[in-house]
Amino acid sequence: MIYGHGDDIYSQNQQIVYNFSSNVYEHEDDNWLYNLLEKNLSVLHSYPEPDATSLVQLLAHRNNISEEEICATHGATDAIYLIAQTFSHSNTAIFAPTFSEYEDACRINRHRITIIKELEDVNRKNFEMVWLCNPNNPTGLTFDYNILVELIDNNPETLFIIDQTYHYFTNKPTLSYVDAVKRENVVLIDSFTKRFALPDLRLGYFVTNKKLKNKIQYYKQPWAVSQLAIEVGKYILQSMTCNLDLASLLGETKDFQERLSNIKGIEVQGTDTHFFLCKTQKGTAEELKKYLVEHHGILIRNASNFEGLTANYFRICTQKKEANMKLIDGITDYMNSFKA
Amino acid sequence: MIYGHGDDIYSQNQQIVYNFSSNVYEHEDDNWLYNLLEKNLSVLHSYPEPDATSLVQLLAHRNNISEEEICATHGATDAIYLIAQTFSHSNTAIFAPTFSEYEDACRINRHRITIIKELEDVNRKNFEMVWLCNPNNPTGLTFDYNILVELIDNNPETLFIIDQTYHYFTNKPTLSYVDAVKRENVVLIDSFTKRFALPDLRLGYFVTNKKLKNKIQYYKQPWAVSQLAIEVGKYILQSMTCNLDLASLLGETKDFQERLSNIKGIEVQGTDTHFFLCKTQKGTAEELKKYLVEHHGILIRNASNFEGLTANYFRICTQKKEANMKLIDGITDYMNSFKA
Repeated sequence: MIYGHGDDIYSQNQQIVYNFSSNVYEHEDDNWLYNLLEKNLSVLHSYPEPDATSLVQLLAHRNNISEEEICATHGATDAIYLIAQTFSHSNTAIFAPTFSEYEDACRINRHRITIIKELEDVNRKNFEMVWLCNPNNPTGLTFDYNILVELIDNNPETLFIIDQTYHYFTNKPTLSYVDAVKRENVVLIDSFTKRFALPDLRLGYFVTNKKLKNKIQYYKQPWAVSQLAIEVGKYILQSMTCNLDLASLLGETKDFQERLSNIKGIEVQGTDTHFFLCKTQKGTAEELKKYLVEHHGILIRNASNFEGLTANYFRICTQKKEANMKLIDGITDYMNSFKA
Repeated sequence: MIYGHGDDIYSQNQQIVYNFSSNVYEHEDDNWLYNLLEKNLSVLHSYPEPDATSLVQLLAHRNNISEEEICATHGATDAIYLIAQTFSHSNTAIFAPTFSEYEDACRINRHRITIIKELEDVNRKNFEMVWLCNPNNPTGLTFDYNILVELIDNNPETLFIIDQTYHYFTNKPTLSYVDAVKRENVVLIDSFTKRFALPDLRLGYFVTNKKLKNKIQYYKQPWAVSQLAIEVGKYILQSMTCNLDLASLLGETKDFQERLSNIKGIEVQGTDTHFFLCKTQKGTAEELKKYLVEHHGILIRNASNFEGLTANYFRICTQKKEANMKLIDGITDYMNSFKA
């Protein structure tokens, strides 16, 4: 494992009041969660279901696929590591900049890694495996659905690992679970982490055809998902209406981006979702991050350790209006500090 | 992963009132746990510390070793899989009968596996790695401390993986963490699961010298231990007196074993801890298990799928006196049913 991910609240000495550093969606009312956990705390005293069968069955049913086409994992990260282990020593492409765990998991499992920055490279070279994040982290951009499907179908010998954990937060079309299972060469990664703001439950899964599922699952540990997480996942699927107001979230993002663009010295990049990259023209992202923690109790994600990004890049994730305005104020203060 | 572990409450149709199938210690008052979790539920909304540093530091301090000599894992099972992966393709011995995950993890990682039934075999053959469970599951027997240490020191080219997750439940001497870290060829596995009856938290760790820790940790996923588990682990280390009354537990086990021995048709095997093997001379362990679930709401562990054990073996774990008497009654009924 490597260091340098976002959401590093634990390593800050100051209290963090506003956290823009993680792509987790924090707008949920969570009384339902506390009530549910209170009722289910006794499950901590027994072993969980070895392969989260009851949750997998429900997920399959809700998504019109078979339970033999879904495998629950200890967060999306566990899926990434299992896939990299199953296909160790592969000739592998990773579309960058992106989430660093794909490269880390592939390096550990001795893949020959090529970093690509254009999808077209997949047609030109004979990769055994390609990793894509869609919408992509940290850029927030999606791949065009038709171009992506054509690429997959034109390269039947290449296995496409597509991490769609952020698909809830875009209105651009992404691959459906049915799109994945009806093909020979697609594994979709998804999770409850981002959509329901529950990263500590470590509740992810992958979706693929039965043959590939069995091949990857061979490497899986039993009891990878806790029963507490299984119960929360089932409750979400059974009881919650999908109350994410995406139009409002994307509207606020657009407004937030405009306000940020108006700060002299900040360059804001386009996005298809609720998080995006910015560049500071004064100092570095690390200096800005440190300033915001110390002076405003605000945490942003220094994005300079993403492949191909310079020291000026940072990533932020739209929060509630009040918090967003605090970040605007904080960055404005930072820029003004250079004039003093 | 394979199927057929104990604690399979989830797959029973009848309600289980008494669970003898798991080696988890169920005698704790758990109000402290509920209070703690209630206070800490908000941690579910953030990512955990990537490598559980705050817990590792505390564990190291309490056990007089360095934090560079402990690695926290997603239960002891995660430690087993990481170790097997790190030393893939090894020439490996497993002392049987024992917990099946050692063999499963080694098979997945293409070890050449030899099942041994005597420690002396380690001196006779050049194994690269030996797995021992101490006290052993399912027998409850410990290895003699002096013989074990001599074996380790006489075989410096062999790496000893010693799972001591049950050491809290025996008064026989087992290896200390210091014993492990001062040697070149020992990895100890331990966990909070058994001692504190918290298998669903998935909170384990391994202890070894710094060089081996780094080698094994290389394969580890970030965020393997949830922050909820980290907080519970820290609370246990900081606040709880060690209120396990071992003398009373082992006394009850002795009494329980005597009562079981008095049932005609049951053979009870010796143990150094609170769980042990029995053999039924009537029918099979599976038939007995089914009878007890259906007629008494009691779950035992059919032990016939442990390497080298026949269809007659079952494992039970001492519970409170009242529960133990219910099992005596249940098994007596089962034996009487053959007379009808």
